[in-house]
Amino acid sequence: MRSCFLTRLALISTLLFAPALQAMDDVPNSQDSAPRNVILIIGDGMDDQQVTIARNYLHGARGQFTLDTMPERGAMQILAVEDSTDNTPVYVSDSANTATSMATGVVTSRGRIATTAGDDQDIPTIGELARDAGYRVGLVTTSSVTDATPASFIAHVALRFCESPATMIDIEYSGIPLGDCSQDLKANGGPGSISEQLATSGLHVILGGGARHFEPPTEAGNMSVLELAVDNGFTALLDGSDLATASPDARLLGLFAPSHLPVRMRGENGREAESPEPSLLNEVHPYLGEVDLPAVMNCEANPEYGETPSLKALTQTALRNLDHENARGFFLMIESASIDKEAHERKPCGSIGEMGQLDEALEAALAYADAQGNTLVLVTADHAQAAQITPNGSLFSAYPIPIFSPGKIARIRTPEGAIMVVNFATNNFPYAEHTGGQVPIYGNAVAADILPTYLLQPDLFTLMRDFLEIPAQ
Amino acid sequence: MRSCFLTRLALISTLLFAPALQAMDDVPNSQDSAPRNVILIIGDGMDDQQVTIARNYLHGARGQFTLDTMPERGAMQILAVEDSTDNTPVYVSDSANTATSMATGVVTSRGRIATTAGDDQDIPTIGELARDAGYRVGLVTTSSVTDATPASFIAHVALRFCESPATMIDIEYSGIPLGDCSQDLKANGGPGSISEQLATSGLHVILGGGARHFEPPTEAGNMSVLELAVDNGFTALLDGSDLATASPDARLLGLFAPSHLPVRMRGENGREAESPEPSLLNEVHPYLGEVDLPAVMNCEANPEYGETPSLKALTQTALRNLDHENARGFFLMIESASIDKEAHERKPCGSIGEMGQLDEALEAALAYADAQGNTLVLVTADHAQAAQITPNGSLFSAYPIPIFSPGKIARIRTPEGAIMVVNFATNNFPYAEHTGGQVPIYGNAVAADILPTYLLQPDLFTLMRDFLEIPAQ
Ligand SMILES: [Zn+2]
Ligand SMILES: [Zn+2]
Repeated sequence: MRSCFLTRLALISTLLFAPALQAMDDVPNSQDSAPRNVILIIGDGMDDQQVTIARNYLHGARGQFTLDTMPERGAMQILAVEDSTDNTPVYVSDSANTATSMATGVVTSRGRIATTAGDDQDIPTIGELARDAGYRVGLVTTSSVTDATPASFIAHVALRFCESPATMIDIEYSGIPLGDCSQDLKANGGPGSISEQLATSGLHVILGGGARHFEPPTEAGNMSVLELAVDNGFTALLDGSDLATASPDARLLGLFAPSHLPVRMRGENGREAESPEPSLLNEVHPYLGEVDLPAVMNCEANPEYGETPSLKALTQTALRNLDHENARGFFLMIESASIDKEAHERKPCGSIGEMGQLDEALEAALAYADAQGNTLVLVTADHAQAAQITPNGSLFSAYPIPIFSPGKIARIRTPEGAIMVVNFATNNFPYAEHTGGQVPIYGNAVAADILPTYLLQPDLFTLMRDFLEIPAQ
Repeated sequence: MRSCFLTRLALISTLLFAPALQAMDDVPNSQDSAPRNVILIIGDGMDDQQVTIARNYLHGARGQFTLDTMPERGAMQILAVEDSTDNTPVYVSDSANTATSMATGVVTSRGRIATTAGDDQDIPTIGELARDAGYRVGLVTTSSVTDATPASFIAHVALRFCESPATMIDIEYSGIPLGDCSQDLKANGGPGSISEQLATSGLHVILGGGARHFEPPTEAGNMSVLELAVDNGFTALLDGSDLATASPDARLLGLFAPSHLPVRMRGENGREAESPEPSLLNEVHPYLGEVDLPAVMNCEANPEYGETPSLKALTQTALRNLDHENARGFFLMIESASIDKEAHERKPCGSIGEMGQLDEALEAALAYADAQGNTLVLVTADHAQAAQITPNGSLFSAYPIPIFSPGKIARIRTPEGAIMVVNFATNNFPYAEHTGGQVPIYGNAVAADILPTYLLQPDLFTLMRDFLEIPAQ
């Protein structure tokens, strides 16, 4: 970003008055009203196919998620634009521009974290606005806390990969240049990398993965980013078992894995979706020969998950500390990130488990909201994903020719004794693409007169800001 | 079906007392209350991706359909079972079993028209129940009126292809045996083919395509099915220009094309989705070579559409005749059928135009409902479809290798000046597969305390039956 003057001022005031802001947390707000809370739960890539895949597996075709009991429901249209100022639409988004839409109300281009398309201006986020209005703010995720979705609620960089001071210039992956954030360096008048921005953010709770992005020295070089966070009042938690014992008074930075948190489920022996293998004769003519479909598989517990704290456990700790002696209220974003990440890798069992994690975190959020009142709970996805349920027996199986997906499929045996086929066929690359469909959005009873049945993704920002009674800027 | 005794009795009474039923239409019902109406609009294959594709094209990414203004919204889970009595789930449905779910409240197997899985019993439909309770019943579609969706609301056969007396035994397509309905022949104690069942149905309005299924002689052989319909009180309309001038007193059978009605839009010069063409080098290794993507195309008017009546025009005529001097009320099913049929053929422009047709028909339905009151308007899909919006530039386009769909794509230039890619990659067959995701369901204000935010497809039957105050059987 080229930090605009007002944002820089806000940043400076945050740095200077962070202790004052903390103290303010403990006194009733001047408006002398009951606390108001917003809990926004994001299922990354959680479109209607993903919800159905996971429900079929976890609860059966006639079963239901807690999510399905939410009394309010709408559809949300996802928007992106080219990286220019002329607003040319782009019909498929990524998690950076979509989180920016929700966090700022501004449609931007793919890869950007709360900065504008084309002219790279910082955009105030709901996280900053809520914090500055005296609300506590929390971010909880199963990804690295520096990943695009959480980052967009508080940080500003031109490119989502600028997660730590070590990855700000000439970022490469396997030798491929992916861009950089030179203009976001503090030395160039910017706010620094995402992890540094989190460390000095004044947020109340940040829980997820991404410890490795807090290990490098800060841009100033005098300490690690984690030390900077502790200097700025965070209590660092690096083991899930610390969650329960952490002081409810503390501002928490919990980092429970080097990068993203391990996922809960996987395919049998780690299997993912695989290519149907047509016989040689089928390659001569599509009406000839045969096809070997991937063997049917079960889903199983992921042995790498180990003692990883669940999204529900993170949510409960976040709610405890956000709520503790808080007369003003809070904004909490909770993300189940690997519904998407596992779908990119064509691992439907992984997505299923993370969908289950989201639903459990929602249970915790609803229990809090029911007990507390005045708490708006919203659940949505940031964008649609690649996976589709396709027939195990083709609709056209009467035709005596091999009919099969040109992509990769997983044939999953469900607990109700049938075979569910999940197809990934958006591209030939190791990572599947996102897709451009509208996504579901759900609300609790507090959302009744607030959540429309159809909205544009940036309108979600306005809706949450209005509920928190924060004036338009 | 093996027609059960009670259903046969109902059928006989319909045949004997059809004139009496007609007369009953003209007097207030015994319950002495205001008329109640249900208008159920089905977008065949209209999932969230299809809605978004069509909205992006017809109204722009920030635009909206009339559909999007509906005040009530939920998601509907689609259910099917194997063709046996043990209820083993099947995760992808066809239009026959899904229409049966909505029309009867019973989950059945693919291909069945209001008959049970495994033991082939006829199941009473909302069309029959409403008719027998004194309501007028109408079916409007852009498909043949004998196609699976409309048929399931009134007819009972074991296989959807049994559309006329000429296609009841040993049905083949290109020499491939597709099954038969021998047990549904009248000679075997069944109700006969779908067109014969429609002709003697006692319905008030049947409008769509499918004239060729009314040309063959009836099973008895003494007249054509169309003549049988006229004998049973229908006024036959065979040209769209007859719609406006038809008597509002008449019971209408309108057949405006030999089979399905032509669709409104098509790809430039009839183009459909096409395969990306990788260079030879790319076939040596996926990281090498290049790929030719299909050229960008516009959508255009389909020259075959000609003077075909629009779904809105059919809807308005149906509403006029159903409403005319009707003190009891009506049940009307309206289907935009070729959202699905065009998607099977990988013709996204076709689906877009038919989605537009649905939205216009909805406008007419809402205008009626607003003026009349006491009219429940529901819009939903029967099942999800293959099409997905995929990125025009891959999310991974920083990688200098060719990334492309393994299926077929259309790259459509939208009126807002961008390129929308629609991907069809569920199989390698000439017709794409359905998919298994939950589908949207919308309601007007009358649905406020009736439509839940999540329901199983068969629950829709109960919901409509209860609104019409028809007791459970
Ligand atoms: Zn993603
Ligand atoms: Zn279909």
